[in-house]
Amino acid sequence: MAITVVGSVALDSIASAEGSVEKEIGGSAIHFSNAASLCTKVYVIGVVGEDYPFERIEFLKRRGVDFSGLEIVPGGKTFFWKGRYEGNMGTAISEATELNVFQNFAPKLSGLARESGFLFLANIHPSLQLHIRRDIGSSAFAVLDSMNYWIDTIPEELYQVIACVNAVILNSDEILSLTGKKSLLSAARYLLTRGPDYVIIKKGEHGVLAVARDWVAALPAFALDRIVDPTGAGDSFAGALVSYLDRASSFAPEAWKKALAYATCVASFNVQGFSVSGIASIGVRDVLKRFQEYCNMFEIQGGLDALSDAAG
Amino acid sequence: MAITVVGSVALDSIASAEGSVEKEIGGSAIHFSNAASLCTKVYVIGVVGEDYPFERIEFLKRRGVDFSGLEIVPGGKTFFWKGRYEGNMGTAISEATELNVFQNFAPKLSGLARESGFLFLANIHPSLQLHIRRDIGSSAFAVLDSMNYWIDTIPEELYQVIACVNAVILNSDEILSLTGKKSLLSAARYLLTRGPDYVIIKKGEHGVLAVARDWVAALPAFALDRIVDPTGAGDSFAGALVSYLDRASSFAPEAWKKALAYATCVASFNVQGFSVSGIASIGVRDVLKRFQEYCNMFEIQGGLDALSDAAG
Repeated sequence: MAITVVGSVALDSIASAEGSVEKEIGGSAIHFSNAASLCTKVYVIGVVGEDYPFERIEFLKRRGVDFSGLEIVPGGKTFFWKGRYEGNMGTAISEATELNVFQNFAPKLSGLARESGFLFLANIHPSLQLHIRRDIGSSAFAVLDSMNYWIDTIPEELYQVIACVNAVILNSDEILSLTGKKSLLSAARYLLTRGPDYVIIKKGEHGVLAVARDWVAALPAFALDRIVDPTGAGDSFAGALVSYLDRASSFAPEAWKKALAYATCVASFNVQGFSVSGIASIGVRDVLKRFQEYCNMFEIQGGLDALSDAAG
Repeated sequence: MAITVVGSVALDSIASAEGSVEKEIGGSAIHFSNAASLCTKVYVIGVVGEDYPFERIEFLKRRGVDFSGLEIVPGGKTFFWKGRYEGNMGTAISEATELNVFQNFAPKLSGLARESGFLFLANIHPSLQLHIRRDIGSSAFAVLDSMNYWIDTIPEELYQVIACVNAVILNSDEILSLTGKKSLLSAARYLLTRGPDYVIIKKGEHGVLAVARDWVAALPAFALDRIVDPTGAGDSFAGALVSYLDRASSFAPEAWKKALAYATCVASFNVQGFSVSGIASIGVRDVLKRFQEYCNMFEIQGGLDALSDAAG
C-alpha cells in the first residue's frame, strides 16, 4: 500500500480573521501527504530551494512520508504564496505568488515511488501531469486535480490528461467552467464521457458530490462553527480519500462513500488550524471519533415509518 | 393531525431556461399546501381577488386542503409576481410584484384552523405573524419563515416573533444577514438563544442544516441534473417537513432527520416542474421511491473498516 503524489511544496503566508502565519509549510503535496500519511505510505515528488525548513517536515517523515523524490535546487528559493481570507472564507485572495524553483519543476519518478498503487496528480501544468501519468503506467490508479488557470488557458491539454486518469477531483466552479454545464451532476456525467470512471466535486462547506457511471454519492460537510484557515482543505481531502481507497483495496460504491466520509472528516480538521497544524496534531483515532459525530448528522435508521399508512 | 398555514396565495409568471408559464398558481401557502397535503390535512389562511382561478386548486381540495379560510376580496385582484431564473437558477430575478389584495391582508383564524397542532407562518409581515401566533395559542407547534426584506428593514419585529415560535426556517443568506454571524452553525446557535428550539437552514442545491440545542443534522440535496423552476422549493420543503413531523408526533432527532430527508425529496420534485406541477402529479409512493435513491447517496453501512488496524 502506497501513494505517490506529484505537486507543489511551498511556503505560505496566510491571514484570516483568526490570525496569521508567515512562511509556514504548505503546497498541495504537503497538505496531501499530511492527510494521507495518517493511514498509508506516501512518496512525495516535488521541488524546493535551499531555503526550505526541512526540520518542519520531520513529523511527516515519522508518519511514513518518503521525501527521497523531493529535489533540492542549489541556491534556489522555494515556491512562496501569500494570501488572505475574508468573509465566509470561501475563496482566498492572493497577495503574492513567487513560483521560484517551482517554475522549472520537472517531476521525475524514481525508486519505490514508481511502484505505488495510487498516483495523485496535484494541481500542476497538465503536460507535466500527463508525462508522469504515462511514466508510471496504467496499473497505478491515478487521481487528478487541477485549477481554473489551466481550465481557462489550456482546456484541451487538460482534457488529454483527464482522458488517461481514473478519477478527477475538482471544485464546483472549476467543473462548471471546464464543462460549460449548468448543474454539477450534468457536468460530472459529461466528464465521465471524457475518460475517468469517477468524478469528485468538492463543494467546500457544502460537502461533496461523487459521480460514477452507475452511482451518485452526496455527503454534507462536517458542520463547524469556526474556520481558521481553509488553505489545503482540498488537498487534505484528496489525501484522505485516496489513502482510504488504498487501504480498502476496493472501488465499490460502499468503499467510495466511506472514503468520501473519511476525507470529509480529515479535511474538517485541516481548516481548524493554520498550515498543516490541524491534521499534524491528530491520529486516526481522532478522525474515527469525529466520523461518529459526522454520521449522526445524516444517518437515518429505518425508513419513513410515519408514512407507512400514507402510501395508499 | 392538521397544519394551519398563513401565507400568500398568488399568480406567478415565471421564465427559466426550460420554458415559461403565465399567471400560474403560486404563493407560499399554495406551495406549502401542495407538499403538506401529500400526507396530512391543511388549513389555508390567505387572501385572493375575484380573478383567482379557483378551478386550479380543486386538486388540492381533493387532497384534503381546506380553503374555507381563503378570503375573497370582492372586485380585488390577486397578488401577482413575475420573475425569471438565469445561470444555475440559484436566485430569482423579480420583474414585477403587484401585491394587490395581499397588501391589506389581515389573516384571521377560524373554525378548525384554530385547532391544528401545527402552525406554519410563511413569509408575511412579522406583525401579522405575531398576531396569528398569539391568537392560535402556544399549544400549536409554530414554524416561522421570513425573507431579507423584513430582516433588512424591521429585524427587531422579526426577533419578537422568533421569540415565540418553536422552529425557524431560513435560507443561508437570510440567517447570516439576520444574525451577523460568519458561519451557518454559529448563526443557528445564536438564533436558538433568541427563543426557538430548532433552526433549519435551507441551502438549496446544497441541502439543509438543522440545529437544535443538543444535536446537529446535515443532509445533502437530492442531486438533479436539470432544474425547471425553483419557485416554491422552500415552501414545499417546509410543507413536507412539517407534515412529516405532524404524522410522526415526535420531535426526537431521528424524527427530525427523517422529516428533513422526506422534505428534501419532496422539494426535489417541486423544482422539476413549473408552478405546482412537480408535486401535483405525485403521491407519497413516488416520494418513498426517491427516498430510497436519496439515502443511497449518503448511507454508510458499518464503520470505516479499512482503518481497523490503523487506529493504534
